Amino acid sequence: MARKSNRSRPRRRGPVKLKKDVAELVARERVCRVATAGPDGMPHLVPVCHVLHDGKLYFGSGNDGRKVLNVKANAHLAATVDLYSDAWKHLRGVMLQGTARVIEGGAEFRRIRSRLYEKYPQYADEAAIEESDSVIVELTPTHVFTWGLE
Amino acid sequence: MARKSNRSRPRRRGPVKLKKDVAELVARERVCRVATAGPDGMPHLVPVCHVLHDGKLYFGSGNDGRKVLNVKANAHLAATVDLYSDAWKHLRGVMLQGTARVIEGGAEFRRIRSRLYEKYPQYADEAAIEESDSVIVELTPTHVFTWGLE
Repeated sequence: MARKSNRSRPRRRGPVKLKKDVAELVARERVCRVATAGPDGMPHLVPVCHVLHDGKLYFGSGNDGRKVLNVKANAHLAATVDLYSDAWKHLRGVMLQGTARVIEGGAEFRRIRSRLYEKYPQYADEAAIEESDSVIVELTPTHVFTWGLE
Repeated sequence: MARKSNRSRPRRRGPVKLKKDVAELVARERVCRVATAGPDGMPHLVPVCHVLHDGKLYFGSGNDGRKVLNVKANAHLAATVDLYSDAWKHLRGVMLQGTARVIEGGAEFRRIRSRLYEKYPQYADEAAIEESDSVIVELTPTHVFTWGLE
């Protein structure tokens, strides 16, 4: 499908700051999709519920989830927030590519968990993130690709 | 977030047949997300408009798109169709992982293009798939992971 792209060139290596509109879209949307790559190069792609904090994206996961195992072996991760419309001129979205880190517990874990619980009130009751069986994954974006956004 | 999983174990190697409900969801939904992996192991994740035909998933792309370059170097591809609800018990979706093939032209290209144009009437006018600058990517699923579907 057609889309106007706004690719940053050259490819940046260090952390990138998100433009205000991009950050707002990522922060406000209720779901994003994340992709990791397995040791055999097979991508793994699932929806997650996320928060954006200080330009980094965070989501919880069971500590034995495939995406966590993948990240531990290969820290490259992509997270995409997009809006679909059959009126294709309104397609918009952002892909963040970068480096992921698994936070297994401690004060940082609890701080981010509080933000996830705040954004998703259902979290604590329905899928509590406990240090005993869960982790939080942090994505530091190093490359931003947007479409339909200026 | 919580989800009921229905993972097929052991991991199958050959093509898998999609169950009727899974096939219907994939076929009817208007957008899916696809992930490929670059030579450096960096995932690439974007939404695409797709058709399902004979158990295989197809989508069009510019012939120099990153996902096409990735597939030519690493044929592993994941495509996910999912429905988000803040009532998490209604989360559902399917991830298809498998082997991708790039169709660069010919009768097969034109047959699949017709199916894409039929599902998406806006396609021909707004983002015509021409053999000169476009390809069709075919995914043969070898592994199916579902949640919220029986």
